[in-house]
Amino acid sequence: MPMKVFNDLADFSIPEVEALLTLATRLQQKPESTALAGKVLAMLFLSPSLRTLSSFQAAMVRLGGGSFVISPDMSIHGLETRSGIVMDGVAAEHLREAIPVISSYGDALGIRAFANRTKLAEDLADTEFNAMRALVPKPLINMESAIQHPCQSLADWKTMDELKVPKKGGKFVLSWAWHPKALPLAVPSATLHMAAMRGMDVTVVRPDGFALPPQIMDKARKAASLSGGSVRETNDRKQALEGAHIIYAKEWMSTQHYGDRVADQKLREELQDWRVDDPWFATAHGDCRFMHCLPVRRGVAVTDRVLDGPRSVVIHEAQNRMWGQMAVLYQMLGPGA
Amino acid sequence: MPMKVFNDLADFSIPEVEALLTLATRLQQKPESTALAGKVLAMLFLSPSLRTLSSFQAAMVRLGGGSFVISPDMSIHGLETRSGIVMDGVAAEHLREAIPVISSYGDALGIRAFANRTKLAEDLADTEFNAMRALVPKPLINMESAIQHPCQSLADWKTMDELKVPKKGGKFVLSWAWHPKALPLAVPSATLHMAAMRGMDVTVVRPDGFALPPQIMDKARKAASLSGGSVRETNDRKQALEGAHIIYAKEWMSTQHYGDRVADQKLREELQDWRVDDPWFATAHGDCRFMHCLPVRRGVAVTDRVLDGPRSVVIHEAQNRMWGQMAVLYQMLGPGA
Amino acid sequence: MPMKVFNDLADFSIPEVEALLTLATRLQQKPESTALAGKVLAMLFLSPSLRTLSSFQAAMVRLGGGSFVISPDMSIHGLETRSGIVMDGVAAEHLREAIPVISSYGDALGIRAFANRTKLAEDLADTEFNAMRALVPKPLINMESAIQHPCQSLADWKTMDELKVPKKGGKFVLSWAWHPKALPLAVPSATLHMAAMRGMDVTVVRPDGFALPPQIMDKARKAASLSGGSVRETNDRKQALEGAHIIYAKEWMSTQHYGDRVADQKLREELQDWRVDDPWFATAHGDCRFMHCLPVRRGVAVTDRVLDGPRSVVIHEAQNRMWGQMAVLYQMLGPGA
Repeated sequence: MPMKVFNDLADFSIPEVEALLTLATRLQQKPESTALAGKVLAMLFLSPSLRTLSSFQAAMVRLGGGSFVISPDMSIHGLETRSGIVMDGVAAEHLREAIPVISSYGDALGIRAFANRTKLAEDLADTEFNAMRALVPKPLINMESAIQHPCQSLADWKTMDELKVPKKGGKFVLSWAWHPKALPLAVPSATLHMAAMRGMDVTVVRPDGFALPPQIMDKARKAASLSGGSVRETNDRKQALEGAHIIYAKEWMSTQHYGDRVADQKLREELQDWRVDDPWFATAHGDCRFMHCLPVRRGVAVTDRVLDGPRSVVIHEAQNRMWGQMAVLYQMLGPGA
Repeated sequence: MPMKVFNDLADFSIPEVEALLTLATRLQQKPESTALAGKVLAMLFLSPSLRTLSSFQAAMVRLGGGSFVISPDMSIHGLETRSGIVMDGVAAEHLREAIPVISSYGDALGIRAFANRTKLAEDLADTEFNAMRALVPKPLINMESAIQHPCQSLADWKTMDELKVPKKGGKFVLSWAWHPKALPLAVPSATLHMAAMRGMDVTVVRPDGFALPPQIMDKARKAASLSGGSVRETNDRKQALEGAHIIYAKEWMSTQHYGDRVADQKLREELQDWRVDDPWFATAHGDCRFMHCLPVRRGVAVTDRVLDGPRSVVIHEAQNRMWGQMAVLYQMLGPGA
Repeated sequence: MPMKVFNDLADFSIPEVEALLTLATRLQQKPESTALAGKVLAMLFLSPSLRTLSSFQAAMVRLGGGSFVISPDMSIHGLETRSGIVMDGVAAEHLREAIPVISSYGDALGIRAFANRTKLAEDLADTEFNAMRALVPKPLINMESAIQHPCQSLADWKTMDELKVPKKGGKFVLSWAWHPKALPLAVPSATLHMAAMRGMDVTVVRPDGFALPPQIMDKARKAASLSGGSVRETNDRKQALEGAHIIYAKEWMSTQHYGDRVADQKLREELQDWRVDDPWFATAHGDCRFMHCLPVRRGVAVTDRVLDGPRSVVIHEAQNRMWGQMAVLYQMLGPGA
């Protein structure tokens, strides 16, 4: 049965994810350059992108199809997102038209829209993304929303498989990292879930005020209970890093002060030592790898020596974005779909 | 014989347009994903776009070819359009080079350039577009110029055919609609001509000061005389809407004050009740549809309840942009062309 | 053996360049629309482009593959280029990640980055481009760097061949031309080398203060010694133009005041008569052609009457960009590569 939505790894069973990864590797090793001949991926970027923007275009070409990109920084008509308003200002087009129109030209639609970061409940419910999703009668790919980033998770899972990072007994440390701005919860949430679903022992380590929301933790615990993994959270970095197979750094906003930029800023100012550096690996597993979804600020979230050193697998992760997404596109639009 | 220029439906006979629409439907139903293999559509957007930008890219992919887009908002060299000047300012490239260069990379060229809206005679003569056209030795597609928008007309004709809107005896009302800005005459002119050519009884209804130019009306009357349709113009909205099969809303500038933004603004300020709403359909035909080329300002040109209601076919029209354009591209560049 | 880098015509023998041009002509005459099926060209534009941006996209489509473009004016994360800094400012992504990531999605990578124009030695050494090149494990195309523009040279060579401009005994005049800004040395350097390598008698004519650097001249002399051509430099325009088969105009910065915009500006202010005009051709060969890489400022570097006249072959040159690049891509990624 063809895939209809790629939104959350939690929508799939473990064998289904593993089948996707097997397909990704197959397409990587044996190109199928006509599989999606004449097929079109429509992409709407309401937030910035480098990897997603590039890798989806490349993925469609590699499968023999093509794509187009719409983003508000182009010379389009200005996009309105609010409901029920009189559009007598700058924006000349409403998303309620733009999304059905764009998706009508594609066989599938990908949407990126980062979190608004004002109301936690809305972002956790992925309210904005789900409102857009309701307008799309076509297969849909979440290219990062307020709380999801399944393409990144698929790539990270594949990367760990290729590096033979253990599933059962593998220690995955998701560490908060310093950043001058309050970033969304999408990647930490998706990453936590992915590692738990992969059967790993996951530790979320973060300063006080940055605990991941209970809904996210509970969802991951449920995944761990099915996979044989485990999930815990702590503010004790020293203890967290002991024996780690993976240190996955990610910057995110204060959940204690969600939507309050000033309080968030005050809290994070003191936390500049949350910069991944060589000593973080002192008590880790000998083969411990450094992971990050990119983009990453050098000298901020991680030092140059870690990022440029042999533990860093960030480019490997990024490359796997393309192969994983090719599997998704193939399942959605390919032969037999 | 391959099509050389797609600029104006008036350049084609009724059977030729119908053949294009038949081809469009054929390509919609039976994809031909290698018909334009290795073929390139070059596109120059001197004005904003969403549908045209997206649908032409998608169209080329669906036929196995590809495209590229140039627009002044990209990181290009700055485009000069004026003749005979010393280019010692910001712009580093003249359209007189840019157009032949871009078209030399394509098998066909599409150009979008909205009306300057300063001199009516120049816009009616499509002076700027025709100057560019003279520089292009390749098949050319008008992607909306000062006075033409043939791709929209083709899509609208196809949409009405699919909805079984009568040709002979079908009542098509092209109604002026409120908008904060003075918009060009391209869509009303092209739409009027299309409906007349389709054999419908066309009523243009608009406030005083917004009459369509006699050249446009005369051209449409000529088309109607060949098709068995009719064309009239009125400021009496109540009477105009009676028995309508189609209410096609479009915003346009004052022709009485062409080029005079202040006078136009003063006139339109009083006309905010030209917002299509449910009561407009009270005396219309039971199956009356609402059409608009998009983008449309919600709560300005039309209410949410009409646009989101069952009479609205605006997404259907937009989708037909792609299928119609695929037929044009196929006739220009496809097998046998 | 497949081509790994296309950076400098000097990296190739004369027969190798001629073989590339033969391949270019073959692909122009007999399309091979599946040669690069499923292949992806990644392109990074750190500087503006029209021809390169368009022609590479078109080239990939014509060969059955595709491409994607990244440039800082897109909605990406902001690119940092400096080494060893703490990225707590605006830029969220470093080129040290962006380049490997982008190239990982392509089968080859093209990069454009104009000269910084502050330190001559750095620009002559192509320091910035070579630093990026070191990050790319894939085939690489120089789409214009501080001192190279091999795609332009290939196109110009092809154009002269098609126009039957003599190799041995052909007189090629590379003339400095007026421009309000201090432009890089990439095109004059590459053009000089190309004409010398083609076996022509090359004269560089330029005002005092604009002599090409000795390294560039020496490199071209070495090429001329192998090809049977010759290279000389002068400030005597009258003498230089006598008997010319080609007048190739190019604007460039003062080498005497390299990096000193004020001194450069002062010097060039007096040089507005270095505008190619009909009288320049008075003593030239009867068939003398006007060449320029474009973009060109009308009325600044050249008069309209020359640019629009029969001697001008600038559009021919621009079109050959595509065919030449197709040969490069085919050698890098095509059957047998």
